[in-house]
Amino acid sequence: MVKVIMHGCNGHMGQVITQLVEKDPEIEIVAGIDLNDCRDNGYPVFTDIWTCDVQADAVIDFCTAKATDTLLEYCEKRQIPVVLCTTGLTDEQIKKVEETSKHVAVLKSANMSLGINLLMKLVKEAAQTLAAAGFDMEIVEKHHRLKVDAPSGTALALADSLNEGLDNAYHYTFDRSQRREQRDDKEIGISAVRGGTIVGEHDVIFAGDDEVITFQHTAYSKKLFAKGAIQAAKFLKGKEPGWYQMSDVIG
Amino acid sequence: MVKVIMHGCNGHMGQVITQLVEKDPEIEIVAGIDLNDCRDNGYPVFTDIWTCDVQADAVIDFCTAKATDTLLEYCEKRQIPVVLCTTGLTDEQIKKVEETSKHVAVLKSANMSLGINLLMKLVKEAAQTLAAAGFDMEIVEKHHRLKVDAPSGTALALADSLNEGLDNAYHYTFDRSQRREQRDDKEIGISAVRGGTIVGEHDVIFAGDDEVITFQHTAYSKKLFAKGAIQAAKFLKGKEPGWYQMSDVIG
Amino acid sequence: MVKVIMHGCNGHMGQVITQLVEKDPEIEIVAGIDLNDCRDNGYPVFTDIWTCDVQADAVIDFCTAKATDTLLEYCEKRQIPVVLCTTGLTDEQIKKVEETSKHVAVLKSANMSLGINLLMKLVKEAAQTLAAAGFDMEIVEKHHRLKVDAPSGTALALADSLNEGLDNAYHYTFDRSQRREQRDDKEIGISAVRGGTIVGEHDVIFAGDDEVITFQHTAYSKKLFAKGAIQAAKFLKGKEPGWYQMSDVIG
Amino acid sequence: MVKVIMHGCNGHMGQVITQLVEKDPEIEIVAGIDLNDCRDNGYPVFTDIWTCDVQADAVIDFCTAKATDTLLEYCEKRQIPVVLCTTGLTDEQIKKVEETSKHVAVLKSANMSLGINLLMKLVKEAAQTLAAAGFDMEIVEKHHRLKVDAPSGTALALADSLNEGLDNAYHYTFDRSQRREQRDDKEIGISAVRGGTIVGEHDVIFAGDDEVITFQHTAYSKKLFAKGAIQAAKFLKGKEPGWYQMSDVIG
Repeated sequence: MVKVIMHGCNGHMGQVITQLVEKDPEIEIVAGIDLNDCRDNGYPVFTDIWTCDVQADAVIDFCTAKATDTLLEYCEKRQIPVVLCTTGLTDEQIKKVEETSKHVAVLKSANMSLGINLLMKLVKEAAQTLAAAGFDMEIVEKHHRLKVDAPSGTALALADSLNEGLDNAYHYTFDRSQRREQRDDKEIGISAVRGGTIVGEHDVIFAGDDEVITFQHTAYSKKLFAKGAIQAAKFLKGKEPGWYQMSDVIG
Repeated sequence: MVKVIMHGCNGHMGQVITQLVEKDPEIEIVAGIDLNDCRDNGYPVFTDIWTCDVQADAVIDFCTAKATDTLLEYCEKRQIPVVLCTTGLTDEQIKKVEETSKHVAVLKSANMSLGINLLMKLVKEAAQTLAAAGFDMEIVEKHHRLKVDAPSGTALALADSLNEGLDNAYHYTFDRSQRREQRDDKEIGISAVRGGTIVGEHDVIFAGDDEVITFQHTAYSKKLFAKGAIQAAKFLKGKEPGWYQMSDVIG
Repeated sequence: MVKVIMHGCNGHMGQVITQLVEKDPEIEIVAGIDLNDCRDNGYPVFTDIWTCDVQADAVIDFCTAKATDTLLEYCEKRQIPVVLCTTGLTDEQIKKVEETSKHVAVLKSANMSLGINLLMKLVKEAAQTLAAAGFDMEIVEKHHRLKVDAPSGTALALADSLNEGLDNAYHYTFDRSQRREQRDDKEIGISAVRGGTIVGEHDVIFAGDDEVITFQHTAYSKKLFAKGAIQAAKFLKGKEPGWYQMSDVIG
Repeated sequence: MVKVIMHGCNGHMGQVITQLVEKDPEIEIVAGIDLNDCRDNGYPVFTDIWTCDVQADAVIDFCTAKATDTLLEYCEKRQIPVVLCTTGLTDEQIKKVEETSKHVAVLKSANMSLGINLLMKLVKEAAQTLAAAGFDMEIVEKHHRLKVDAPSGTALALADSLNEGLDNAYHYTFDRSQRREQRDDKEIGISAVRGGTIVGEHDVIFAGDDEVITFQHTAYSKKLFAKGAIQAAKFLKGKEPGWYQMSDVIG
């Protein structure tokens, strides 16, 4: 049995995880942390993280970036591995994650879903064959109307996957409306569509002479990311310090 | 029998039209105009437009924007209706088209295909219902790696179709990477993908709460635009002066 | 305020509707009917429909086909309009719905979403232009692994929409693997994909010479159908006897 | 320089290959074979295959299945490797191909494009991870209205790729309209769409809980298959007897 502290337990994702964990015999939430102690979750909730001294194998974090610094200090001090799912961290915070990961296991990925992480591996492989054969590469991502960052972190991570397999010789383009010239051979165009409540769709497009290959991932529910986080927490139990990725979880 | 002068007869599209017309008993090319008189087309080719005095019911034009001014003067002077398919005209040239259309019939459309022109009508209708119901609208277009303008004229024309039905209250966005805020309710995002030899794909996306409706048009060959131009030439025979559209042709 | 009886209130869709109605000031659930009285919904629940004598403007039904006959008798007797969302009714039951609708307002549609119902209207219109121009029509639908009927009722309703505009001259094909001959001009192929938890995707494809137009609807959550049912209940309050459709609701 | 005999040189694909080879400095057509000697190709054309004694490194075949038996005998006798692109061979003919390949190099693949052959490799890899994680697998293929076989050979080959990585434990389903039960866990559904002039589209769909991954290949022109055949002929020059695949060519 993996014992978990849920950081941000009363937020939307915290509640989704709480419900999923209830049905999973291999994992248990032993404590929650949330500024807002508004409901009975069946486990104790602490509004001040430092008062939480419950024993645990991992922390799952779906909170706001404002709470991340303190969380990292807490996990390092108490030596509890942490699955960091909060997005929108600053460059400085990313550095702090790196620093912390030298002392305790931290898992942080651009996307928590099995599908996207498998896709990253496959498109990297495809890029090596297809770029050599003259295919152009483009990414289109679609998200709900409330998402403020564009392109998505996952789209950038997919582009990085393509690029890694190609000696990082490619650069990214987000807007073609301001120039009137042909695309560059070493260009990966990334387009961001926003609308409705779209959970997340990513297309990686390889366009060649008379043929196009598209790798598409569609997320239908945020539950997907909750499931990935639970899988990650199970994986992280007992791990050595280090920065882990979802790709390590799927093996 | 409709008699046609082919302007730009030895270019790629001129040749496609030449081949299609050969198999069509209702239409005939009686002369060609091209700087480059390089092959036997089965009809006389003039390298200087002003020396061509062959009688005709219409001109089909697939040439370069540099030749458009002279062509317009020629058609007005000789009173021959013209199907203008050359793209990339300047604003000044567009004004000249407008002026010329007061004296002779001119057909100029953002896209020559039956499918796209039907789509424009249908998405306008859909927009009126769906925008009122809170759906967001986005357009994604895909073209070959050599296309320099972005977004495509067809994508802009599709956006205009949406907008027309909505009191032109919407504005267009081409790049979201430079801002970090939510999309505006009155925003139509337009994304341009470039790669390979893609002939032309246009997606008009209506994204609502928990549902998305997409209208997609895919062109598989430039022959499509040649066929539209031939249909337009047949339509234009004997027409009064005026600026005509493909929507007039499909009725 | 529209007062509603929720038939099947403790099933999955009954609960989704219960939650949505709580946030909607224009509508209220005044009673529930369910064999299974397992939770506190904030309104009285009757396990025997005939004991429910609460005043209401409409019944919303998301239950099993076994309960439909009794429900129809109840609504006719008590003169309460009913939104019938249960699927998989037998031909006999459909006849009973028709009979009942002569005495009380009944709304029953193949699909409860705004988007699908708009799509039906638009593809009918498109079919008239495109079929005349030689386009072939095909439908592909995708649903979750548990769905037993194929093709979906919505796919068949979309095919009927196409057909209606074309003098019902078309027939439907579900399997091409057993014959080795070309498709018929008057054939609409309908394919059914099943897998995962796909809520519902419908593609109506018009394939012509060198161009393809696709109308695609994607549902991301069953909440969509709950919202449609609520809209329908509001519409049905005070309506004359008759068989109503979602197309009447969207106007 | 690779010297090639073009079998079926005056058919549609024979002509496409003739034009492509003209622009390729590494390969040359030294003779053509066709019942129909109707045009000047710039190389000698033989209407009787046995009278063709021109030296060559490979034969490219895009003809009819009726001519395949004689072609195989010819290639074996003259010891010229052959790229077999004719489709619709009978089971008996497939056996003859196998027999012939013991004496001379034969390349025969379900699909001649680089993209499809890469896709086969990647979906096999994906299937091993995703099937284990509970994803269902489905294939949808789309082809022009004249195609008589369904599903396409390429769709079946893709299904075989999935299956190979999974101990061939899966069976294929072509029609779900006649049964009313849930899909089987070990089922790969294959759907065939027919219409217009669609060159060929193949979707391999992995549908899981709340996420779907789709691998899509779109062919825009038959030129694609011509290019694959030319690549294969270059590869086959000087090869030992054996049955080769396009996957050997892309390495």
